[in-house]
Amino acid sequence: MLKRNLETFLGCTAEYGEAKLVLFGAPFDSTTSFRPGARFGPRAMRGDSWGLETYSPYQDKELPENKVFDAGDPELPFGAPERALDRIGETAGQILADGKLPVMMGGEHLVTLGALRAAANRYPELHILHFDAHADLREQYLGEPLSHACVLRRCWETVGDGRIFQFGIRSGEREEFVWGEEHVYTRKFDFEGLADVTARLSGKPVYLTVDLDVLDPSVLPGTGTPEPGGASFSELLGAILSLKGLNIVAADVCELAPMLDPSGASAAAACKLLRELLILL
Amino acid sequence: MLKRNLETFLGCTAEYGEAKLVLFGAPFDSTTSFRPGARFGPRAMRGDSWGLETYSPYQDKELPENKVFDAGDPELPFGAPERALDRIGETAGQILADGKLPVMMGGEHLVTLGALRAAANRYPELHILHFDAHADLREQYLGEPLSHACVLRRCWETVGDGRIFQFGIRSGEREEFVWGEEHVYTRKFDFEGLADVTARLSGKPVYLTVDLDVLDPSVLPGTGTPEPGGASFSELLGAILSLKGLNIVAADVCELAPMLDPSGASAAAACKLLRELLILL
Amino acid sequence: MLKRNLETFLGCTAEYGEAKLVLFGAPFDSTTSFRPGARFGPRAMRGDSWGLETYSPYQDKELPENKVFDAGDPELPFGAPERALDRIGETAGQILADGKLPVMMGGEHLVTLGALRAAANRYPELHILHFDAHADLREQYLGEPLSHACVLRRCWETVGDGRIFQFGIRSGEREEFVWGEEHVYTRKFDFEGLADVTARLSGKPVYLTVDLDVLDPSVLPGTGTPEPGGASFSELLGAILSLKGLNIVAADVCELAPMLDPSGASAAAACKLLRELLILL
Amino acid sequence: MLKRNLETFLGCTAEYGEAKLVLFGAPFDSTTSFRPGARFGPRAMRGDSWGLETYSPYQDKELPENKVFDAGDPELPFGAPERALDRIGETAGQILADGKLPVMMGGEHLVTLGALRAAANRYPELHILHFDAHADLREQYLGEPLSHACVLRRCWETVGDGRIFQFGIRSGEREEFVWGEEHVYTRKFDFEGLADVTARLSGKPVYLTVDLDVLDPSVLPGTGTPEPGGASFSELLGAILSLKGLNIVAADVCELAPMLDPSGASAAAACKLLRELLILL
Amino acid sequence: MLKRNLETFLGCTAEYGEAKLVLFGAPFDSTTSFRPGARFGPRAMRGDSWGLETYSPYQDKELPENKVFDAGDPELPFGAPERALDRIGETAGQILADGKLPVMMGGEHLVTLGALRAAANRYPELHILHFDAHADLREQYLGEPLSHACVLRRCWETVGDGRIFQFGIRSGEREEFVWGEEHVYTRKFDFEGLADVTARLSGKPVYLTVDLDVLDPSVLPGTGTPEPGGASFSELLGAILSLKGLNIVAADVCELAPMLDPSGASAAAACKLLRELLILL
Amino acid sequence: MLKRNLETFLGCTAEYGEAKLVLFGAPFDSTTSFRPGARFGPRAMRGDSWGLETYSPYQDKELPENKVFDAGDPELPFGAPERALDRIGETAGQILADGKLPVMMGGEHLVTLGALRAAANRYPELHILHFDAHADLREQYLGEPLSHACVLRRCWETVGDGRIFQFGIRSGEREEFVWGEEHVYTRKFDFEGLADVTARLSGKPVYLTVDLDVLDPSVLPGTGTPEPGGASFSELLGAILSLKGLNIVAADVCELAPMLDPSGASAAAACKLLRELLILL
Repeated sequence: MLKRNLETFLGCTAEYGEAKLVLFGAPFDSTTSFRPGARFGPRAMRGDSWGLETYSPYQDKELPENKVFDAGDPELPFGAPERALDRIGETAGQILADGKLPVMMGGEHLVTLGALRAAANRYPELHILHFDAHADLREQYLGEPLSHACVLRRCWETVGDGRIFQFGIRSGEREEFVWGEEHVYTRKFDFEGLADVTARLSGKPVYLTVDLDVLDPSVLPGTGTPEPGGASFSELLGAILSLKGLNIVAADVCELAPMLDPSGASAAAACKLLRELLILL
Repeated sequence: MLKRNLETFLGCTAEYGEAKLVLFGAPFDSTTSFRPGARFGPRAMRGDSWGLETYSPYQDKELPENKVFDAGDPELPFGAPERALDRIGETAGQILADGKLPVMMGGEHLVTLGALRAAANRYPELHILHFDAHADLREQYLGEPLSHACVLRRCWETVGDGRIFQFGIRSGEREEFVWGEEHVYTRKFDFEGLADVTARLSGKPVYLTVDLDVLDPSVLPGTGTPEPGGASFSELLGAILSLKGLNIVAADVCELAPMLDPSGASAAAACKLLRELLILL
Repeated sequence: MLKRNLETFLGCTAEYGEAKLVLFGAPFDSTTSFRPGARFGPRAMRGDSWGLETYSPYQDKELPENKVFDAGDPELPFGAPERALDRIGETAGQILADGKLPVMMGGEHLVTLGALRAAANRYPELHILHFDAHADLREQYLGEPLSHACVLRRCWETVGDGRIFQFGIRSGEREEFVWGEEHVYTRKFDFEGLADVTARLSGKPVYLTVDLDVLDPSVLPGTGTPEPGGASFSELLGAILSLKGLNIVAADVCELAPMLDPSGASAAAACKLLRELLILL
Repeated sequence: MLKRNLETFLGCTAEYGEAKLVLFGAPFDSTTSFRPGARFGPRAMRGDSWGLETYSPYQDKELPENKVFDAGDPELPFGAPERALDRIGETAGQILADGKLPVMMGGEHLVTLGALRAAANRYPELHILHFDAHADLREQYLGEPLSHACVLRRCWETVGDGRIFQFGIRSGEREEFVWGEEHVYTRKFDFEGLADVTARLSGKPVYLTVDLDVLDPSVLPGTGTPEPGGASFSELLGAILSLKGLNIVAADVCELAPMLDPSGASAAAACKLLRELLILL
Repeated sequence: MLKRNLETFLGCTAEYGEAKLVLFGAPFDSTTSFRPGARFGPRAMRGDSWGLETYSPYQDKELPENKVFDAGDPELPFGAPERALDRIGETAGQILADGKLPVMMGGEHLVTLGALRAAANRYPELHILHFDAHADLREQYLGEPLSHACVLRRCWETVGDGRIFQFGIRSGEREEFVWGEEHVYTRKFDFEGLADVTARLSGKPVYLTVDLDVLDPSVLPGTGTPEPGGASFSELLGAILSLKGLNIVAADVCELAPMLDPSGASAAAACKLLRELLILL
Repeated sequence: MLKRNLETFLGCTAEYGEAKLVLFGAPFDSTTSFRPGARFGPRAMRGDSWGLETYSPYQDKELPENKVFDAGDPELPFGAPERALDRIGETAGQILADGKLPVMMGGEHLVTLGALRAAANRYPELHILHFDAHADLREQYLGEPLSHACVLRRCWETVGDGRIFQFGIRSGEREEFVWGEEHVYTRKFDFEGLADVTARLSGKPVYLTVDLDVLDPSVLPGTGTPEPGGASFSELLGAILSLKGLNIVAADVCELAPMLDPSGASAAAACKLLRELLILL
């Protein structure tokens, strides 16, 4: 008998029961203010992942066959951010409740809030490691508190002062930086100081959120708000691999908008980072 | 002294006071369920309109210099449909209150609801003439009542039975067609019967809403949900020009997503239809 | 427990056992001589099918939930046409052996040969109905007998004289037309005479192969060898719907090369035709 | 010994001495006012012509091997229209002096003026048959008399009243149409009346100029100024084939801007029309 | 009363009278020899600037509200370089006469000549700081002295020996480099030595011209003649910020051809550099 | 008399007899497993080379007029790898037999095997210098031994142990790396150690094969399998220029897929590397 069509991310061949990691997509971009399209991120990452291998020469390791389950995407209502976040939270919450580690493919960055709330619910000591070009610390954007441009501010309302560590930030309003000085740790432009932060976070539960626009647009032009002057692929990969040993309890990779880059190089970068992350975790 | 930069739609050179028509954009697409990008419709229509002339050989008429004022776009909050509709309603309402005729460039089709409510407020007898590929008559979409896929159903809640006349419809759920049979007039696939409807509407206040995907995707591929089997450019232009003499009190042209068509042919079609409409009204 | 990710064509929700039709993809384009990319046809058709409804206003019918099973794609070795055809033949053969009707999404047109051989094996009386811009009747192409440009000639070697009926043909070498006059029925440019042919084929087992480039490139620019002067969407849809009642035992839809049409209109046309075909069969 | 690389238009295999027709390109677009790129027309037409056959099923005829010589492109200085026209005139003039028929691939439409002057020099009775969306009859454009938007007006200065016959015109300033009524024959929108005009031109030397934007943008989106509401491919092909027997002494096909249409469908349409024209002449 | 539509570059909110800087566009590319499209640079820079903030984390400074006035684009005749340069010269001249600093958005690099002449007229001691991939020092190009490939040679005719300082040059004919050794300062490949040059230029009036193709094509693929091996975004930004304190009296940023980069990353790089320059000046 | 159209790579003006190098294309990509299109590499490299100069400021040298002959492309049968390799081998073999150095433009990387076999036939001591992102050392791929993913393994079968030196490798199956340790020299990620290898190869006949995907996708997104984390343009150029003095007897540059990068930056990078290589050899 023929098998039903399945399209998962490369190497996600585990059964749910045995999987340590559960991958899912959050195809939502209704609050994107500049160029939408991040909703197609999960689809592109699954499809283009097959241009890669399951073996990482960086870590000299295969992605084990029984490690990751790809749960597809919950159906998210466009134009209804709060309900979408609830659906994302339910999905992440179930995975956490089953003792597994959720890894989410965005979608715009707002989707992080849904998964973060679920993780914070389970791990009250949760800290956030945040790689991004944008501070995302606004109180509101065009009057809306639930916007991709405010997502870390909303996360801060959940986790509180001293719990958020940002790297690579090179865009924001002056007010975000001023506010941030009192409430979060912000490293502008690059990853300097990451080793110190990693040491401080040792043993604590960490949510890792990667907004792919932390990469320079030469590496990842396919994103809603390209911000020149960012990290090279090797710098971001190095930063991620340096997290080995950290107690990451949930993670996401957001803001790939594949239609904006017909060459597919953006999707390739996203896929390779996700592969490395899945092997690392 | 140098003049400030202005970019209006072609030929919209009137001062506000003297204008009969006021054009504005509604750059919003947060509820688009398939491919977003209609938010860039107004920008593309203004920019690409300069590839046209102000003279129409179809109507043998110029767009008069003192006829149309281009009021730009109200700032609309992405991800907050109800508030966006309120802002659109305020804009359309002010234009109507000033005794002028609002012409809106979408954006996704949901924006029609904002302008329609303002027009119905002023003209309780308002009827709707609707050219579209999709019936847009769903009660809700993924649980949301405020969605582009439900917009005519929401309009019906404002104007009531027997007031909506649809042409060109070639997609929808079976339920929409069944429900529609009792509440609205629906002509599937083409514009047959339009002359009769126009005669019936004679003298009554009419809101004209054109979802550009009523055109075949060969003519207008740059739209969120291309639906093959639609009208040729000449068929749609003919339908619009046949409305001469109708008491149109407000109008819109929606669902141009210019990034989806790098050739610019979609924007050209939208611009030319809008020019003809502005001359006609 | 979460469910594994599935991406099927719209509405293909049946279990294998209950399904009447089995859809599968043949992502192969190694012999394409002009512009490759048809290998991505099945992926694009599955993904973009979700912009449609399961209800057809043309046939006033839903695609039944228990009718179609989507079996995914067999893994085909690029650069090895004979082995690829064998794999396709095995897949189609198993579906036929299970008493079901195979519907294949190409891939370049050569893939038809694999499925056709399986069908002819089961139905020795098999006839072929062929909609295409190109005659595909060459003895060889650049020395190769296994080429998309020769596929109907190869099919003829299986079914013999008087069994192939071509419509819409508007390109080929003079030799193909000359040879064709003795061995196949060829209608140039359009579908005139299709009703007569359908009547002649009544009751006989028919393999239907649709090379999407039978459509005009304005409707379907996303194909390897666009050939201007083709059918409109409505003409091709009408031709397909006119086959109602014919004893079609296998079918395919080939030559969508989605990357060549960034607007997605080509994929939309392919998806809609396939939906109508699945409802019809 | 290996042969040097040649890339000619499909089937242009004649030696210069034996050729009846000489094809050359005019890769110039400096006066294009909207979207440039027609300079790449000749390159695209040569390259993409290989997706076609040398046999026309429309005329049931091959392009003979000894009929057409492809002379490449003269080097034209960008930004210097008068000098570019001189170079084009020299090229066309030499071909005419050698008793051959020049066929030019544009470039923007201004290049017609260079070839037309050469032809008028040799044939003082020259008439012009002009297929276009735009009247191109302006006295000047932004102060410039040498502009693509003025090209037929400049041609008129060479050939005089009653010698220019335009078809398909659907765009222009009112002044162009008013001026045209006294000086040229203009058929708006389509090809009605072409048979009468062809009869009137019988025996007279005719320059045929085809601005490809006479086609609807659905057929040919890859052009600088797409103008919706144009001819289908079959209508234009029919118009061209109806010229059989006319005394055409020079011809051109202009305004393909291939980069604007990544699908290649525009180039395919241009190539096929040129093949038919080369077989016809 | 509604306000007329304005589309300015981000943050250019000053009234003309109060503005210190006046921004304007020069949408001209008629002499571009490879790929045209720089005419759309100003439009793209205005439109895409809204993806940025007015605050620079690099300089820790906002763009003040009363600093910059955006004067739009003078109408430039395509195909008539000398007249276009005159129009540009008039615009820049008026700004300088009003005691303000002109900042021009190209267009192709030839437009620099128009603004440079106006500046040299006012500041006879004018020096030129030139960041570019190409030397642009040819005597003529295809016989034309007014070409983008000759623009610095033409500027030299105005300012004379020892006044031009080039950085980043990595392409040119051998003759340009040989000639340049006697007449201009040329640093090949990078910005080494810029600090020394800046010191030498201290107090002197300086015209800064940035041809964006000095950037590597990975950062800015959207340009007419991409030249691999160029500066990273951070290197160019660093070079510009190092000019703080220099007496820059006019500046331009040229050669963004946005249609060549559908990802928008090129426009984003151009916008961000211009923002930093506007804050710096 | 007019000259026939020629389109060669920039500066390839030599007659065959006098040429030291002979350039030819291998437009074949039938075994590409991810995204096809490398067949258009030679055409794009020839066409876009004209955006460059013949003078290299890196080597301070012109490409001499009598050095390189461009022999065009042999006709290769798609879908028939063995026969295509034979044709390539014949072409390279003839060039070698005439005492000249063949330089091949791919095409997918499998084409290297054809030219390598011809070179090994003439130079039994042949060594291979291989710059690539992928190890290409598989025994077979989807059951096929003749695949781009196996090409260096096939080459090894010809030249044997210790003759292949790979640099830049950052992707492959674990088995390839394990196998490679015994049979070939592999430098992962970059060019470290190249000077040592060059010294070891001194005087020996060397085949240089450059798979352009050794470059980072930011530099060259237009390739079938983009692999993030690669070399910058300057790093690869430096590596190539460091080969000066090596006894290179044949070379190729493969895997440019130009349609995947509409900006043309990928083709520009390929062209510039080839120019530098042609000057160097």
